[in-house]
Amino acid sequence: MNLSELGEGGAIARMAEILQPGGLPPGWIGIGDDSAVTDLDPGAGESLAGPPGATVEARRSKVLTTVDMLVEGVHFRTETTSAADLGWKALAVNVSDVFATGGHPLWAVVAIALRGDLPAAWLDDLYRGLREAAARFACPIVGGDTVGTPGPLALSVTVVGTAACPRLRSSARPGDILAVTGPIGLSAAGLWALGHRDAPLPPDLRERAQQAHRRPLPPGYSSELATRERMALMDDSDGLGTSARQIAVASGVQVVVDASRLDVADDVASVAAVAGRDPLEWRLWGGEDYGLIAAISPQEPLPSGFRSVGRIETGQGAWLESSAGRTPLERGGFRHF
Amino acid sequence: MNLSELGEGGAIARMAEILQPGGLPPGWIGIGDDSAVTDLDPGAGESLAGPPGATVEARRSKVLTTVDMLVEGVHFRTETTSAADLGWKALAVNVSDVFATGGHPLWAVVAIALRGDLPAAWLDDLYRGLREAAARFACPIVGGDTVGTPGPLALSVTVVGTAACPRLRSSARPGDILAVTGPIGLSAAGLWALGHRDAPLPPDLRERAQQAHRRPLPPGYSSELATRERMALMDDSDGLGTSARQIAVASGVQVVVDASRLDVADDVASVAAVAGRDPLEWRLWGGEDYGLIAAISPQEPLPSGFRSVGRIETGQGAWLESSAGRTPLERGGFRHF
Repeated sequence: MNLSELGEGGAIARMAEILQPGGLPPGWIGIGDDSAVTDLDPGAGESLAGPPGATVEARRSKVLTTVDMLVEGVHFRTETTSAADLGWKALAVNVSDVFATGGHPLWAVVAIALRGDLPAAWLDDLYRGLREAAARFACPIVGGDTVGTPGPLALSVTVVGTAACPRLRSSARPGDILAVTGPIGLSAAGLWALGHRDAPLPPDLRERAQQAHRRPLPPGYSSELATRERMALMDDSDGLGTSARQIAVASGVQVVVDASRLDVADDVASVAAVAGRDPLEWRLWGGEDYGLIAAISPQEPLPSGFRSVGRIETGQGAWLESSAGRTPLERGGFRHF
Repeated sequence: MNLSELGEGGAIARMAEILQPGGLPPGWIGIGDDSAVTDLDPGAGESLAGPPGATVEARRSKVLTTVDMLVEGVHFRTETTSAADLGWKALAVNVSDVFATGGHPLWAVVAIALRGDLPAAWLDDLYRGLREAAARFACPIVGGDTVGTPGPLALSVTVVGTAACPRLRSSARPGDILAVTGPIGLSAAGLWALGHRDAPLPPDLRERAQQAHRRPLPPGYSSELATRERMALMDDSDGLGTSARQIAVASGVQVVVDASRLDVADDVASVAAVAGRDPLEWRLWGGEDYGLIAAISPQEPLPSGFRSVGRIETGQGAWLESSAGRTPLERGGFRHF
């Protein structure tokens, strides 16, 4: 079997299986969630993480670490993505992972493999995009490695953050509300718009959609979220459908997405109407919006910025429920190999 | 100007210039040393780092972060480097950076861009090599990203560590001894041996040299080093010559390497004799030994494992001193673009 046959999911599963045979120090959480969860003092164990509401000193916080690799020709093309947008996005997607683990980012390091034929001004623009995102998310870039490559550009960003009480994908419980932030699907709509410059989209709509794709703005982990006793949390980087499946597996529950709640008249629907596309497809499988997806107890009001798109039930798997009945949410996300 | 003309040094300089225009929180150290130095509480500033000898609580330690990118065809070839050795080395080089900043590693994350045509067993071996190094250096791998690439393999490892009192390249003072650990140049000798399977090297010598290249073993930051009041410290990843130049610039001093002190009868000299090469070339420019290079006050004995190879003087630049006089240490290290 080669890696194309194994697929990205298989490769990650092998990684977790081989790299963590003996487990990690108590209280640490490794491969599988949006960020890894660790302590500066591995011996201190579980007691270091405080529950919400407790007086949590800064030194008791957990450390979050997350990394993403972006490869030219797979995740972006220099012909269609500006260097500055690439820099912004490379940092934003990792900041999103930290928010999605219930933390806030502290600093980042960047490793870049560059083609020698690129103009030096391209690199300056990449750094400027990184700097703009670093300022926006209060996440300075403190270190880096720059090397040459004969092949496609590759860019790896690692963000370190902190969380008083990390939020995981595995905390969903039957009865919870499935809720999301933001105009889910707008990044996919923006990607379509970027590829169809002549399509008759109103300029402000085009701009909003393209901006959502080029400069995603993760909503942050609010103090309102931090007061909740329990929630499952992740970001929608791979689309709501994929996220729903991942929450179902991690929490051992059934996730039901309500199609009627996704059928709203918003920018995504407007672009889809011009494109002749089904907006539901973008909402479920587009991804890259970098909003938050949460499973939250129904006994409290929804946090501001969130809206309900489904519910958690006893069982397994992820389902799309519409007037036509329930169908499995089965289309896999983007296949990387 | 394109990136080939700018070069790696130029690209890193641009990164530091553009990404850190407004500086970092007090006490943080960004791009330019072996590891970045930060705090979990950016507001706490300089006071968080304790001097050697002080009662330094774990929570007062600084956090170190370092990242390296390895690219197929530039830093390794799958034909000559086994997947397991690549995994080991990818972690070891970053652990070395943490040691070289006076710290110890805590955890790592790994990002991998894979060619789909590689066998799945190759990936398993890579993970096994990473696991072996993680166990050896007490640095578990807690997270990762795995993506596909149409081009060369790329592997980026980030290590997070901690240091009570970070050591920098900028702390050398005139009068200091320049000292190194290990059989400097042995990795380059091993690389030569790996490329000359038929060369008449004694099997045990060949094995030691090849092992130094395939499985570098950074010596660690010892408690003996930690008690020193002051030292400049870095690793020799790019060779003693390059390191000497970097210490000279960072500390604003002149670094003098004494050629006679490098002229020792060791494994490097033995391989060089068979190869018909000048061992000094390997010692100065071979790099990848991942030993430590220090500038240490002459008023204390050399720490165990170190030997003197030169001295720090008032002035600037790095020089090689031999019976024939002083010549500038001018050959650049490996040029990546």
